[in-house]
Amino acid sequence: MIITFMSDFGTEDGYTGSVKGVLLNLAPQATVVDITHAIPPFDIKRAAYTLLNYFNSFPSGTVHLIVVDPGVGSQRKPLILQTDDYFFVGPDNGIFDLLQYREKYKIWRILEKKVNPKIDSATFHGRDLFAPAAAMLANGVSPQTIGKKETAANPKPTFVSLSGNRCNVPILAVDHFGNIITALHRNDLNRLQKSIKWVAFKNFKTDHIQKYYAEAQKGEPLALWNSLDFLEIAVREASAARYFKVNAQKESVTVELKDHI
Amino acid sequence: MIITFMSDFGTEDGYTGSVKGVLLNLAPQATVVDITHAIPPFDIKRAAYTLLNYFNSFPSGTVHLIVVDPGVGSQRKPLILQTDDYFFVGPDNGIFDLLQYREKYKIWRILEKKVNPKIDSATFHGRDLFAPAAAMLANGVSPQTIGKKETAANPKPTFVSLSGNRCNVPILAVDHFGNIITALHRNDLNRLQKSIKWVAFKNFKTDHIQKYYAEAQKGEPLALWNSLDFLEIAVREASAARYFKVNAQKESVTVELKDHI
Amino acid sequence: MIITFMSDFGTEDGYTGSVKGVLLNLAPQATVVDITHAIPPFDIKRAAYTLLNYFNSFPSGTVHLIVVDPGVGSQRKPLILQTDDYFFVGPDNGIFDLLQYREKYKIWRILEKKVNPKIDSATFHGRDLFAPAAAMLANGVSPQTIGKKETAANPKPTFVSLSGNRCNVPILAVDHFGNIITALHRNDLNRLQKSIKWVAFKNFKTDHIQKYYAEAQKGEPLALWNSLDFLEIAVREASAARYFKVNAQKESVTVELKDHI
Repeated sequence: MIITFMSDFGTEDGYTGSVKGVLLNLAPQATVVDITHAIPPFDIKRAAYTLLNYFNSFPSGTVHLIVVDPGVGSQRKPLILQTDDYFFVGPDNGIFDLLQYREKYKIWRILEKKVNPKIDSATFHGRDLFAPAAAMLANGVSPQTIGKKETAANPKPTFVSLSGNRCNVPILAVDHFGNIITALHRNDLNRLQKSIKWVAFKNFKTDHIQKYYAEAQKGEPLALWNSLDFLEIAVREASAARYFKVNAQKESVTVELKDHI
Repeated sequence: MIITFMSDFGTEDGYTGSVKGVLLNLAPQATVVDITHAIPPFDIKRAAYTLLNYFNSFPSGTVHLIVVDPGVGSQRKPLILQTDDYFFVGPDNGIFDLLQYREKYKIWRILEKKVNPKIDSATFHGRDLFAPAAAMLANGVSPQTIGKKETAANPKPTFVSLSGNRCNVPILAVDHFGNIITALHRNDLNRLQKSIKWVAFKNFKTDHIQKYYAEAQKGEPLALWNSLDFLEIAVREASAARYFKVNAQKESVTVELKDHI
Repeated sequence: MIITFMSDFGTEDGYTGSVKGVLLNLAPQATVVDITHAIPPFDIKRAAYTLLNYFNSFPSGTVHLIVVDPGVGSQRKPLILQTDDYFFVGPDNGIFDLLQYREKYKIWRILEKKVNPKIDSATFHGRDLFAPAAAMLANGVSPQTIGKKETAANPKPTFVSLSGNRCNVPILAVDHFGNIITALHRNDLNRLQKSIKWVAFKNFKTDHIQKYYAEAQKGEPLALWNSLDFLEIAVREASAARYFKVNAQKESVTVELKDHI
């Protein structure tokens, strides 16, 4: 059984090491796979997007552990999501919100005391709650044994507000190659029966959403639907992040929508 | 059997890769777990502290390999430490000094020629000495077969000098979240039958050592005993490193002690 | 069976995670070992040099997957190299060129449709072509089943031009400790029956190629043949990169050769 592990802990403190130790201690037969520990601290949107890039490459039965948890100690709930092929374990803070575009899932609220009877307020949840829950699932424990079924609300986009035709779309991620990925997903427009009139970011404005990078001139910016169907601003064979001197936390992309006729 | 691996090599040169190759070559049944290779080059204090954060999450029998070795080629000794549950393999340069606060151990000096008959002055000790020793231990070879028992001196704190009541306490680590962890451990004060009168760092001075982050105001600095019982300077819900513009290599925290009555 | 994996993807986007998922999906018995994903983007020379540092530490039968691929979508060919002990999988763009100094190999051009019938122009080759090919080799599929034998040209140095006696030698890598490794290999000089008259880099010039770091004064620069027989500029117990403020992409080392008598 495979457990993948993504976090914003970095590696240099040994916290990720301690989580891996717990996983291997409680699920000795499991293979633990590091995804990344370089998610910027507390960057939930980034973690949510990165998750989409890897989860479904793994074999059926894989448990995906994600610990990006700025609200530890607050009222956020610890969750298990169950799809046909996978389990996902992590906090209820938005890291799973983009999965709605790819998967149907059931949600369970983890019952802390069933996972770790010794849990208290000083607990490091990554190591003492989420990791043991992931290990138990990898060992074949069912989610109903350690969780309580939640009646899932109808999922809706949480990182982008689509009321009206003019939207400020937040940036989910600036990837390793400098592409700027926004929170606007094609499905949202389809559901609203709208399409894009124009996209603007800083000094760049276009009414044409491309299909491939190659449709732009080398060194020129373009807007496209990327392979995961998010709106992306890229520069052909260059870094859009550098081209636009982007500040992903503070800036947004402006989109003007129009109704389908 | 599990072998964990921490170093200051980075990953981009392939040196860590070569060490992992040796481990898997000599101990094919072992699971090799990366802890981190992002210890700042030659930062022994940091490695010593990070070790405390993960070693005891792993199953009994785990071999912990640590290669942070500025003195390679010098007179420093290659060591095996043995506790009830674990082996530790690495150089005798201080990386194991903080273990004294957590574990009792026996010490063995590794006999180079028993581990690698071909060893010479051009040897990369991480790959050609420490990794083979760790692999042999993981294979069930006993430490007396490849080492010579050392009569351990009474361990004492080596990163902090506690003569007199005014001490300049070095910084062990600035963690991923910007917390400043000092070399002062609660056990040292207990042994000396002293307690803290006040703590000062730059423009911050306090006579109150907190128990939880939540006792400070948001954005305000505090001093506390952290979960490993080291004195820590933190800022609630913020980075103390940024707040204080800390230079961990050059700065220290001032502590005034008082006798127990 | 072991599959090692090196790339320039970073980890934070989840692309490396997706490649590891494919490997474990298609070769469930394989052990996947991360070498590094911190190769600077598109830095083929660096990847070629790093490969030399780890490949032969691994057990016989290991498959080495290397994805540093600026030319994805161009005419570069996907390759399998086969030596007595290893397979190497990756693009034909220079990442394997330094192997000629260490190994004899056969070359196979990967037949895309035999590896992945669904491959198209939007394919992420790391995940959809190179990873499946590596997994198939780890599963015991022979290279002739998924590749077409190439009649290998006589390998020659590709990162350095050695016509005439004055050469500008590119920098392959600046390693984690700041050593400057050049593309000049001792074998090339032997083949040409030449030796070094002098080496110059910025304000440093020497006619003496050392054998050990210890032959220089502490803090002083030196030129030496490193453990892989490449010409290296180092500073004893310090970072040559910092000493020389090196820009590896733009600068080169000047070497004057002389004929053997």
